[in-house]
Amino acid sequence: MLIRTTTGELYKDYVQRMQRIADLRYANAVLQWDQETYLPKKGAGFRGQQLATLGELAHEFFTAGTMGNLLEELGSRTDLDPLQLRNIELSKYDYEKSVKLPSGFVRKMSEQVTKSYHAWVIARRQNSFALFQPELEQLTALKKQEADYLGYENHPYNALLNDYEKGSNVQWLDGIFGKLLVPLKTLVDSVLDQQQNEVADPLAQYFPKDVQWAFCNDLLSQMGFDTDMGRQDLSEHPFTTSFSPQDVRITTRIDEHNLGYMTWSTLHELGHAWYEQGLPIEEYGLPLGEACSLSIHESQSRFWENCIGRSPAFCEWLLPVICKHFPEQMKGVSAGQLYQSLNKVKPSLIRTEADELTYHFHVMIRYEIEKKLMAGDLQVVDIPILWKELYFKHLGIKVPDDKHGCLQDIHWSHGSFGYFPTYSLGSFYAVQIFESIKQKQIPTEEDIRSGNFSGILQWLQQKVHTKGRFLDTDALCFSVCEKGLDSAIFVNYAMGKFLP
Amino acid sequence: MLIRTTTGELYKDYVQRMQRIADLRYANAVLQWDQETYLPKKGAGFRGQQLATLGELAHEFFTAGTMGNLLEELGSRTDLDPLQLRNIELSKYDYEKSVKLPSGFVRKMSEQVTKSYHAWVIARRQNSFALFQPELEQLTALKKQEADYLGYENHPYNALLNDYEKGSNVQWLDGIFGKLLVPLKTLVDSVLDQQQNEVADPLAQYFPKDVQWAFCNDLLSQMGFDTDMGRQDLSEHPFTTSFSPQDVRITTRIDEHNLGYMTWSTLHELGHAWYEQGLPIEEYGLPLGEACSLSIHESQSRFWENCIGRSPAFCEWLLPVICKHFPEQMKGVSAGQLYQSLNKVKPSLIRTEADELTYHFHVMIRYEIEKKLMAGDLQVVDIPILWKELYFKHLGIKVPDDKHGCLQDIHWSHGSFGYFPTYSLGSFYAVQIFESIKQKQIPTEEDIRSGNFSGILQWLQQKVHTKGRFLDTDALCFSVCEKGLDSAIFVNYAMGKFLP
Repeated sequence: MLIRTTTGELYKDYVQRMQRIADLRYANAVLQWDQETYLPKKGAGFRGQQLATLGELAHEFFTAGTMGNLLEELGSRTDLDPLQLRNIELSKYDYEKSVKLPSGFVRKMSEQVTKSYHAWVIARRQNSFALFQPELEQLTALKKQEADYLGYENHPYNALLNDYEKGSNVQWLDGIFGKLLVPLKTLVDSVLDQQQNEVADPLAQYFPKDVQWAFCNDLLSQMGFDTDMGRQDLSEHPFTTSFSPQDVRITTRIDEHNLGYMTWSTLHELGHAWYEQGLPIEEYGLPLGEACSLSIHESQSRFWENCIGRSPAFCEWLLPVICKHFPEQMKGVSAGQLYQSLNKVKPSLIRTEADELTYHFHVMIRYEIEKKLMAGDLQVVDIPILWKELYFKHLGIKVPDDKHGCLQDIHWSHGSFGYFPTYSLGSFYAVQIFESIKQKQIPTEEDIRSGNFSGILQWLQQKVHTKGRFLDTDALCFSVCEKGLDSAIFVNYAMGKFLP
Repeated sequence: MLIRTTTGELYKDYVQRMQRIADLRYANAVLQWDQETYLPKKGAGFRGQQLATLGELAHEFFTAGTMGNLLEELGSRTDLDPLQLRNIELSKYDYEKSVKLPSGFVRKMSEQVTKSYHAWVIARRQNSFALFQPELEQLTALKKQEADYLGYENHPYNALLNDYEKGSNVQWLDGIFGKLLVPLKTLVDSVLDQQQNEVADPLAQYFPKDVQWAFCNDLLSQMGFDTDMGRQDLSEHPFTTSFSPQDVRITTRIDEHNLGYMTWSTLHELGHAWYEQGLPIEEYGLPLGEACSLSIHESQSRFWENCIGRSPAFCEWLLPVICKHFPEQMKGVSAGQLYQSLNKVKPSLIRTEADELTYHFHVMIRYEIEKKLMAGDLQVVDIPILWKELYFKHLGIKVPDDKHGCLQDIHWSHGSFGYFPTYSLGSFYAVQIFESIKQKQIPTEEDIRSGNFSGILQWLQQKVHTKGRFLDTDALCFSVCEKGLDSAIFVNYAMGKFLP
């Protein structure tokens, strides 16, 4: 049957099927977004069931035998254009990965994720890992089963790592983190010795919630976030989600005693959102309409949060914007002071509030724990103990409780084991892209100082966003930076910035 | 195959299939809710596609041949309990109606509804029916096609009327409205003669949006709305939607120059929401977990909006609540004045702001227009002209523009032709239920005066909400009121209230 059909017709059939699946996945994303922003407490039960049904259906449709045959036949055609060819190639890769997971398992996982998420919210609120533990145990067992379904060599964690970041594995990451550990520790120690540790942080004052919210929306608007194709809301844990490139949502959380948390988290999510908004709309539902990889996604958020957002030029631009909303709190504060406080290196408890250097210890700690957990060398119940040990070992600090320890991140409640390493990878890619932009003589500094971000954004759109998944992570890095991933570039950047 | 399976197994299969379909339908409702509350402007296109996919899938699953066979087989079993039997009976009815509509048609309709809705929003904003007309023409053509698919006797409108209110048709409604017209006109004329028309309306002042919002949430909380299983948001047009009995959402709209609009619209939606929250949770996804009918749904909203909300006792309770939020505006206003202003009869332009009497002319006008439109006796382009004629004929007023005319309601943009009559029917049922409660000596008046609404709510839950679709509209009315629908009871109630 298929053999006698023209390639054009087959490809059209493929696009229609993929878009139908995308509709289900994006609907799922809407339900998840609502779950984390507006869902009434008791609505969680049926919402979990609804999410599971949508997830299961999307999986069923994508893994259907007819889809496999269609991809097989299209893959053998010689008259696809390069974009079509790449879509088919990527869909075949995704298909082969997806068929390894039975539909019933996908449903079970989705239901367990909902339960775990709600348990995590309560556990975090009540500052008690014990309330999360039983659900996390169930979830961990399922993730091990998932690793078995997906298959792996050497280490079960590899299956999950590869799922989030194609090609990544324990050996490779051990190498990267191993190479980073000593220079980074040395750098942190030097900075801690040299920096003025007594300077008061102007962002650690009382900033009322509603004024922060107004400031935040003003900031987004001045940065150029297009609210005709996106919006911002509040949630327990900041995130970005997308229902199409024309409807990208970010969330933030407000700490009334620190303006920095909301502000740089917003810049972070803005970077993610711009990436999603910049994906090619005509490829909706197809691989080329998706982001290259999680690490490249993270490079976009870390780029705006750190490389731009924590630069001297940005501080010069930002200060008057903050002052407009908080004239009292910011009285007498200089851009230099703002820059100092933003870039103060300080071993701390919370990953999302960490400085650019110590941040990676937070990631490495989670990486170690996940690796042990997946290998069966660590029981869920022992996570808090190991967490405390590692924070003391790497950062020299004592973790007072679960809320400031292993309950701080949402990821495990979502079953996202293997996700954290992409945060460090993303930071390294961000720095490499940033160095590239500077070499290309895009007048970033003057632009930033005058609040003109469109030139930089356009460059990123052209080099990264519009490419979708056309290039693999490594190839994209080469095409943008003329070399592959190299954490030494990050260390150089960090030395230049923190030990001037 | 089916014949050899036990009834218990078959019924379980039925429940699972129905719940899966319900998950899709409720997901669709979440996407619609989001569309009318938070969707960024440019997100509308893909959202339309996503809604169409979910709608089409739910339809496909429900109309699958296997579902038909399952229902057929279950319908022949003799060992179902009465609740199961009723579920199967109702599902068979729904199934037979649904299979008349091809899946492609359902998708087309869903896509056209999205287009029409967005055209309506813009047309209304710009006060120009011409901007809505092309989309409404497309939609009207589809609705005629739908009537043909569904089948009808005598009048194509009957197919749509029956779709919203099982058993209703043009002949029956002509009878009800015909019987009402003269007594209602006579009553309105008498009231207009007798009432003091110069009394100033204390609710027609400036009430800032944010204070109205705080008041509204306070009102809901004091009335007993459980925000653990529901919430309120703002939208262009107030509505109630449900994603399960444990997640029921209402919306409202704020007019800063009139406190009444938001307040009584909230009471109206609260009535709908309480009905949805009171449906039996264990019947999720099954007919018995659904509301009896649209007119009974409307009876619950009109009950709280009018029978309770516009009563003297309620005014006594409400006044201090309003005063707490608006001490300046309400200075010197008495409960009696509030009651007078709430129940002032005045022919007006906007249905949702109409008094209890003239309201029904608004409905009858829409009914006449829809009847002609479906019969092909009226072209879409001529709606504004006929609208103006009928408003002058029935209410003696001139319609200044489309916004205050045929663009005021969202319904046609949703393709809801045949829906409006359920509003009048609902009002009549509301009054009959209200008279019943009073006869049953539930101490409604003292309860209302002291803000204790739980007794009334519990009575409604017991007699109406928890029944789901177990009884048909007529049977439910008999079981609650000991007689069927009789608009004369409404006229009597109205005479007692408005010509004391």
